[in-house]
Amino acid sequence: MIGFWNPESIAPRVLAPGVTAKIVPGEKLMFSLVTLEPNAVVPTHAHPHEQMGMMVSGTMEFTIAGETRVLSGNEMYLVPGGVPHAAKAGPGGALALDAFSPPREEYR
Amino acid sequence: MIGFWNPESIAPRVLAPGVTAKIVPGEKLMFSLVTLEPNAVVPTHAHPHEQMGMMVSGTMEFTIAGETRVLSGNEMYLVPGGVPHAAKAGPGGALALDAFSPPREEYR
Repeated sequence: MIGFWNPESIAPRVLAPGVTAKIVPGEKLMFSLVTLEPNAVVPTHAHPHEQMGMMVSGTMEFTIAGETRVLSGNEMYLVPGGVPHAAKAGPGGALALDAFSPPREEYR
Repeated sequence: MIGFWNPESIAPRVLAPGVTAKIVPGEKLMFSLVTLEPNAVVPTHAHPHEQMGMMVSGTMEFTIAGETRVLSGNEMYLVPGGVPHAAKAGPGGALALDAFSPPREEYR
């Protein structure tokens, strides 16, 4: 699975209305480069996979277990497995990189 | 370990001359936001942890198992555990996010 990827060559996967992701799977890790249109929402959900993410551009409200922060710059977040979380892009949209471990099989 | 981090509040760790990292550890994942000064070098090395990375800004030559690419934009790379790899920043420096699984205990 060694390799290099240009996200411009990866077909986007629709996660929610106005939310698309470009997925790169590894063995223990998976990357998901998520584009959120202005004000797009990822509804509250949970999964057993640990998730860490980093803002790449724009702004996003991110809620973990009921605590909401407005993220920008290269701010980061950690969602332990099983913990409910949600996101809402700011008025200019957002680009964020999520990493999962283990990889989310439903994204392969 | 649930939480939010602003990298401006994380003390940088020196990885090599001109190369510093801001570390956020999880249970299964670890993030390392790496700043490389212009032309800075990460010598060839290997570790048992799987590594995925993404360019955030700048350009960087990245070599995995002898194959070198010049990365820019939000290009991504995957280094399986145990595989030798190296990096050299371009003339404008580079910012890249690395993710490791399992976390690198020596970075905690």
